[in-house]
Amino acid sequence: MENKKVAILMGSDSDYGVMKDALNILRKFGVEFEVSVISAHRTPERAMEFAKNAETQGFSVVIAGAGKAAHLPGVIAALTTLPVIGVPIKSSALDGLDALLSIVQMPPGVPVATVAIDGAKNAALLAVEIMALNDPGLKAKLKEYRESMAREVVVKDEKIKDEVKNV
Amino acid sequence: MENKKVAILMGSDSDYGVMKDALNILRKFGVEFEVSVISAHRTPERAMEFAKNAETQGFSVVIAGAGKAAHLPGVIAALTTLPVIGVPIKSSALDGLDALLSIVQMPPGVPVATVAIDGAKNAALLAVEIMALNDPGLKAKLKEYRESMAREVVVKDEKIKDEVKNV
Amino acid sequence: MENKKVAILMGSDSDYGVMKDALNILRKFGVEFEVSVISAHRTPERAMEFAKNAETQGFSVVIAGAGKAAHLPGVIAALTTLPVIGVPIKSSALDGLDALLSIVQMPPGVPVATVAIDGAKNAALLAVEIMALNDPGLKAKLKEYRESMAREVVVKDEKIKDEVKNV
Amino acid sequence: MENKKVAILMGSDSDYGVMKDALNILRKFGVEFEVSVISAHRTPERAMEFAKNAETQGFSVVIAGAGKAAHLPGVIAALTTLPVIGVPIKSSALDGLDALLSIVQMPPGVPVATVAIDGAKNAALLAVEIMALNDPGLKAKLKEYRESMAREVVVKDEKIKDEVKNV
Amino acid sequence: MENKKVAILMGSDSDYGVMKDALNILRKFGVEFEVSVISAHRTPERAMEFAKNAETQGFSVVIAGAGKAAHLPGVIAALTTLPVIGVPIKSSALDGLDALLSIVQMPPGVPVATVAIDGAKNAALLAVEIMALNDPGLKAKLKEYRESMAREVVVKDEKIKDEVKNV
Amino acid sequence: MENKKVAILMGSDSDYGVMKDALNILRKFGVEFEVSVISAHRTPERAMEFAKNAETQGFSVVIAGAGKAAHLPGVIAALTTLPVIGVPIKSSALDGLDALLSIVQMPPGVPVATVAIDGAKNAALLAVEIMALNDPGLKAKLKEYRESMAREVVVKDEKIKDEVKNV
Amino acid sequence: MENKKVAILMGSDSDYGVMKDALNILRKFGVEFEVSVISAHRTPERAMEFAKNAETQGFSVVIAGAGKAAHLPGVIAALTTLPVIGVPIKSSALDGLDALLSIVQMPPGVPVATVAIDGAKNAALLAVEIMALNDPGLKAKLKEYRESMAREVVVKDEKIKDEVKNV
Amino acid sequence: MENKKVAILMGSDSDYGVMKDALNILRKFGVEFEVSVISAHRTPERAMEFAKNAETQGFSVVIAGAGKAAHLPGVIAALTTLPVIGVPIKSSALDGLDALLSIVQMPPGVPVATVAIDGAKNAALLAVEIMALNDPGLKAKLKEYRESMAREVVVKDEKIKDEVKNV
Repeated sequence: MENKKVAILMGSDSDYGVMKDALNILRKFGVEFEVSVISAHRTPERAMEFAKNAETQGFSVVIAGAGKAAHLPGVIAALTTLPVIGVPIKSSALDGLDALLSIVQMPPGVPVATVAIDGAKNAALLAVEIMALNDPGLKAKLKEYRESMAREVVVKDEKIKDEVKNV
Repeated sequence: MENKKVAILMGSDSDYGVMKDALNILRKFGVEFEVSVISAHRTPERAMEFAKNAETQGFSVVIAGAGKAAHLPGVIAALTTLPVIGVPIKSSALDGLDALLSIVQMPPGVPVATVAIDGAKNAALLAVEIMALNDPGLKAKLKEYRESMAREVVVKDEKIKDEVKNV
Repeated sequence: MENKKVAILMGSDSDYGVMKDALNILRKFGVEFEVSVISAHRTPERAMEFAKNAETQGFSVVIAGAGKAAHLPGVIAALTTLPVIGVPIKSSALDGLDALLSIVQMPPGVPVATVAIDGAKNAALLAVEIMALNDPGLKAKLKEYRESMAREVVVKDEKIKDEVKNV
Repeated sequence: MENKKVAILMGSDSDYGVMKDALNILRKFGVEFEVSVISAHRTPERAMEFAKNAETQGFSVVIAGAGKAAHLPGVIAALTTLPVIGVPIKSSALDGLDALLSIVQMPPGVPVATVAIDGAKNAALLAVEIMALNDPGLKAKLKEYRESMAREVVVKDEKIKDEVKNV
Repeated sequence: MENKKVAILMGSDSDYGVMKDALNILRKFGVEFEVSVISAHRTPERAMEFAKNAETQGFSVVIAGAGKAAHLPGVIAALTTLPVIGVPIKSSALDGLDALLSIVQMPPGVPVATVAIDGAKNAALLAVEIMALNDPGLKAKLKEYRESMAREVVVKDEKIKDEVKNV
Repeated sequence: MENKKVAILMGSDSDYGVMKDALNILRKFGVEFEVSVISAHRTPERAMEFAKNAETQGFSVVIAGAGKAAHLPGVIAALTTLPVIGVPIKSSALDGLDALLSIVQMPPGVPVATVAIDGAKNAALLAVEIMALNDPGLKAKLKEYRESMAREVVVKDEKIKDEVKNV
Repeated sequence: MENKKVAILMGSDSDYGVMKDALNILRKFGVEFEVSVISAHRTPERAMEFAKNAETQGFSVVIAGAGKAAHLPGVIAALTTLPVIGVPIKSSALDGLDALLSIVQMPPGVPVATVAIDGAKNAALLAVEIMALNDPGLKAKLKEYRESMAREVVVKDEKIKDEVKNV
Repeated sequence: MENKKVAILMGSDSDYGVMKDALNILRKFGVEFEVSVISAHRTPERAMEFAKNAETQGFSVVIAGAGKAAHLPGVIAALTTLPVIGVPIKSSALDGLDALLSIVQMPPGVPVATVAIDGAKNAALLAVEIMALNDPGLKAKLKEYRESMAREVVVKDEKIKDEVKNV
C-alpha cells in the first residue's frame, strides 16, 4: 500500500469546530492528512475533481463531514473506489437527524461508512483502523490507544468512587 | 422564454411507478418532457453532464425523484440555475423521511423546490405553474384544472352524502 | 412576462428574523418585492384576498413562511396558480418538523415548493431562478452569484488550510 | 342552546372509511349530523363559505378529518368560533405523523381540539360530550355508554381468562 | 347550562409557567376557573376524586396540562363525561413529543381534546368556545377577540412594512 | 417472600396476541400468574381497585401491556409499590412509538420497568429475574434457560453455515 | 435474600450528573450501593467481568446508565440473570432518543428494565421496589415515600392556588 | 496484508435474508468470507471470543448485522481493532430506526462503519473497498463493478424511455 494520506473534507468552514477532532486523532497517530473545504452544492466541480483524483493524489481514505442535506460524502463516494467515511454534522434544526439520514441511507452500489452525529473523532479512528490493516506500526499504536482509553476509564472510575465516598 | 421542455429524472427505474404521475400531468397540459434514469451515485458523470447542459438542451424546469439518501435533486441543482423540483420517494425503511430530509434540507445557496413524499403529481403541477408565468395558454389550462378539481370534490361530496343517506 | 414582483408573506412578525434573509437576496438581485404579515388563522380573509389578487397585483411568485401547523403557504397556494414557495419556520418545540410536514406534505392538486427549515435565503434564490427563466439579466446575475459562492468556498478552504498548518 | 347539529367534514372521499366511525357514534346517540366532502386546498372557497355560515346553519360542533398536510380543521377553525375537532387521517407515508402535527400544532389564537390518528370515533364522542353540557338526555346516554363500555371490558376479561385456562 | 366554571389542572407546579396562559385567557373572558396541582402518578386518588366530582362541583370543562408520559388528561377523562382538554407540556427531553403522543393517542371510547405542545392559551380559548355555545355574551366576546387578533396582525404588518422600507 | 404470583394485565383483548408470549414464559418457568383485561380508560375504577389490592392478593410483580396512549402501566404503578413492568403494544399508527413513550417517560417518583415494543416475552423474563432473587430454584431455571438460548444460537449458526456452504 | 446491594454503573464519568439522582434515592432508603464507571466499549472486559461476578459479589440489582448507542445495560444483562435497570442518558444530539431505543429495544431473551431518559431517580426507586418484595422494612419506607410525595403535591397545590389568588 | 477474509456476523438466523446480499457481493468479487450467527445478548462470550481472535484468525474486516437494540457491531468493535461494518436490520417496529441509532451513535473511541438500514450489499462493497487498498486485482474489479453499474443504469434509462414512448 503506497497511499498513506487521509483526506479530510468539510462542506463548510463552519464544520471545522467538529471536524478538528479528526485532525487531532490523525496527528496523534502520526498519519498524514490534508484538509479541504469543498461543498457538494457550491463547488460541485471541485468536489468531483477531488474525488476522481483522490487515489492518484496518494489518499487512501476520505473523511467527509457535512450537515443538513449532507450530500458531500455520497458525491465523493460516487467518484472514487476509496473508502469514504461520512460524518453527519448537527446543525440548527432537526438535531442532526437530517444529516445522518442523508449520509447513511446510501442506495445499493455506493457505500459510505457513516459514524455518529458529530463523530469526527471516530471517523479518524476508523481511518486509522483501515490503514493499520497494512501497517504494523499503526496497528500497534491503535492497540496502545485502546489500552490507554481503558486506563482512563479506570482513572475516572476511581475519581467518581472518591466523589461518591466523600458526599 | 424559449425553453419549454421539462426534464423528468429518476434515480432508479424502480421510481417510475411514482414518477409516472408527473408524466401524466404534463401530457394532460400538453407540456413537452423528456424522461431519464440518472443516478447521482451510479452515474455521477452523466448526472453532472445532464445538469450542465440542461439549459442549452431546451429545458426550463427539472423534476428529479429519488429515494433513501436522495442526492439526485441536489446534485442537479448544484450545476444548473434552472429551477429543480425534488420528489422524495418512499422506500422500504423509514417511511420516506430519509428521502424527504435528504432533498428538502439543502444548505443555503442552492435551492431545491421540494414536494410531498411520492408527490410526483404536484411536482408536475408546480412545473406547469412556473412555465405558465410566461404562457397564457398554460395559465388558462391551470385555472381550468383547478376548477375541474373543485367540481370533482363536489361530485364526491354528493356521492358520500348519498352513501350516508342510504345507510 | 409582465409580473416581476415577489410577495414575501409571513404568518407572524416573529418570523421576520428568519424571513429577512429572503429580502436580502431579492435586494441583491434587484428583484422588486413586497412584504406582508398575513396569518392564515388570525386573518384568514386577508390571506384569501391576497391570494386571489396576487396575480393581478403584479406578483409572479409568492414566498410564504410560517411555523408550527404552518398552513399559510397551502392556503395561499389553494387560491392562486402562481408558484408558491413555503418556508417552514422552526419554533420552540419539535425542532421545526411540524412546520416542515405541514408545508411539504400537500395533497395532490395544489403544490407548494418547500425549502429547508428556516431556509428563507433559498426560497428567494428559487424565486429568482423561476423569474430568471424569462429574464436574461437575472439569469446572468444568478450565474455570477453561483460563481461568487464557489469563490467564497475557495477562500474558506484556504483559511482553514492555514489554520490547520498553524496549529 | 338551539344549535344541535354536528358537521362532519372530510378533505377527500377516501377519508370516509375512517370518518364513518364518527357517523356511527352520532347515530347511536341520536345526534343530528351532516356530512360534507370539502377540501381546504381544492375547494378553498367552499371551505370558507361553510365555516362562515356554520353557526347560522345550526351547527354546534364541527368535526374535520384530513390527511397529510391536513389544513382543513385549521382553515375551518379560523373562520368560526364554534368548537372544531380535528381528526388526523393516516395516509401512505409517515404513518400519520404529518397529519397529526399539521392539525394539533395550531398557533395561539385559533384552537383545534385534536384527537388520535384515525380517531373519528373519539371525535364524535367529544362532540357529544360538548353538546351534553346542555342536554341532560344526552348526558344520561353518555353515562350509560361509558358503563356499557366498562361492561364490555368485563366480558372480554372473562373471555380471555377462559382462553388462558383452556390452553 | 348551570355549570360555568373551568378546572385547570397541572401535573406539577413546574407546569405553571406554561399553564398560566390559560388563566390569563379565562380572566380576559370573565370565565370563572379553579386551579389545582394534581398528579396522576403521585396523587392518583385525588385525581380520581376530582374527576368523579367535577360535574357536581360545577365545572363544565376541564383543562389538564402534563409533561413526559402525560397521563393526567386521560386519567381525568376516564372518570368524567365532561369535555377534557389536554395540554402537552414540553420537558427536558424529546422536545414535547412524548407528552403530545401520551395525550392525543387516546384509545377509542374516551376522548381528550388535545392542543399544541405548551398550547395552554388555545386550551382556554377552546374551553371558551365550548361554553359560548350556550352563552351569547361569551360568544360575542369571542368574536370581538378574533377581530382584535386580526387587527393586531394588521398593526404588525404595518410595523414590518415600515421596518422593511427603512432598511 | 410469600407473594409468588405474577399479574398479567392488558388494556384490550386485542393485546392478547402479543401478551400470550408472557404467559408462555411464565408457564415454562412454572410461575403462577393471573391474566386480566383491564382498561385504564374504560374501566378506571377496576384498574385502581386491582392496583390497590395487588399486594394483598398475593402478587409480587405486575406486567401491564397497552397500546397508543398507553396509560395502564403508569396508572397501576401509581397505586402499588410492587414492581410494574410495562409492555408497549404496537398499534396501527406511529409504529409503537406512542405506546413506548407513554409508558417509559414516567415522571420522577413512580417508575415503570419498560421493555421493547411488543416485548411481552422479555417482560415475563424480567418478572422471573425479579422473583428469582429470592427463589434459588427459579434462579437455576433462569441460568439453564440462558444456556439453552445460547445452544439454540449455536444450532442456528450451524444451520446457516450449512446453508451458505450449499449455495 | 442475602444480596442486598445495588450496583450503579455509568458508561462515562460525564453521566454522573444524571446518575447521582439514583445514589440520593438509595441513600434515602438506606440501601447499600456501589458506583462504577464501566464502559461497554472502552472497557469491555471489565464490563463482562463485572456482570459475571455481580451475583457472587452480593448485588441484587444492577442500574446502568449510558448515552448515545447505549450498550452498557444490554451487555451487562447478557451476562447476569440479576434484574438490570437501564437509564438512557440524553447527550448532545437526537435528544436522548438514540439512548432510549438502544436500551429499551432489547431482543427477546435478555430483558433490560428501562426507565425514562435521564430517569436515574426512578431507576433507584424501581430497584427499591424490587428489593422491598422481600424486605418489609424497605416496603414500609416505600409506602411512606409515596405518601410524602402525595403530601408534597398537596403543598404545591396550595402554593399555586395562593399564587393564582394573588395575581 | 496477509489477512484476506471477511467475517459476516448476524445476531439471529432471521437476519440471513438481508445479510445474504453481502455474501453475494463477496462471492462476486472472489473475496473469502465466513458466516456466523453470534448474538451479543444470547451468546455474549462467543461474541467476545470471536472479536478477540478475529485478527489472528485471518480476518481483515468484520461485517455485523443486527436488529432492534443492535449491540453486536459495537460489542465486536470494542474487542478488535479491525474495521467493523454495522448493518442495521429493520424489524417489526420502529421501521429500523432503533437498529440504526443503536449502531451508528457509537461513543468516541470505538467506531463502527455504519451503512443503510438493510444495507448488507453496501457493507460488502465497503469491505471490498477497504481490502482493495492493498490488492490491485480487487481494485480493478471494483472499478469494473462501478462501470457495470453505470451501464445498467443506461440500460434502464433506455427501457424507461421506451416505456414512456409507447404509452
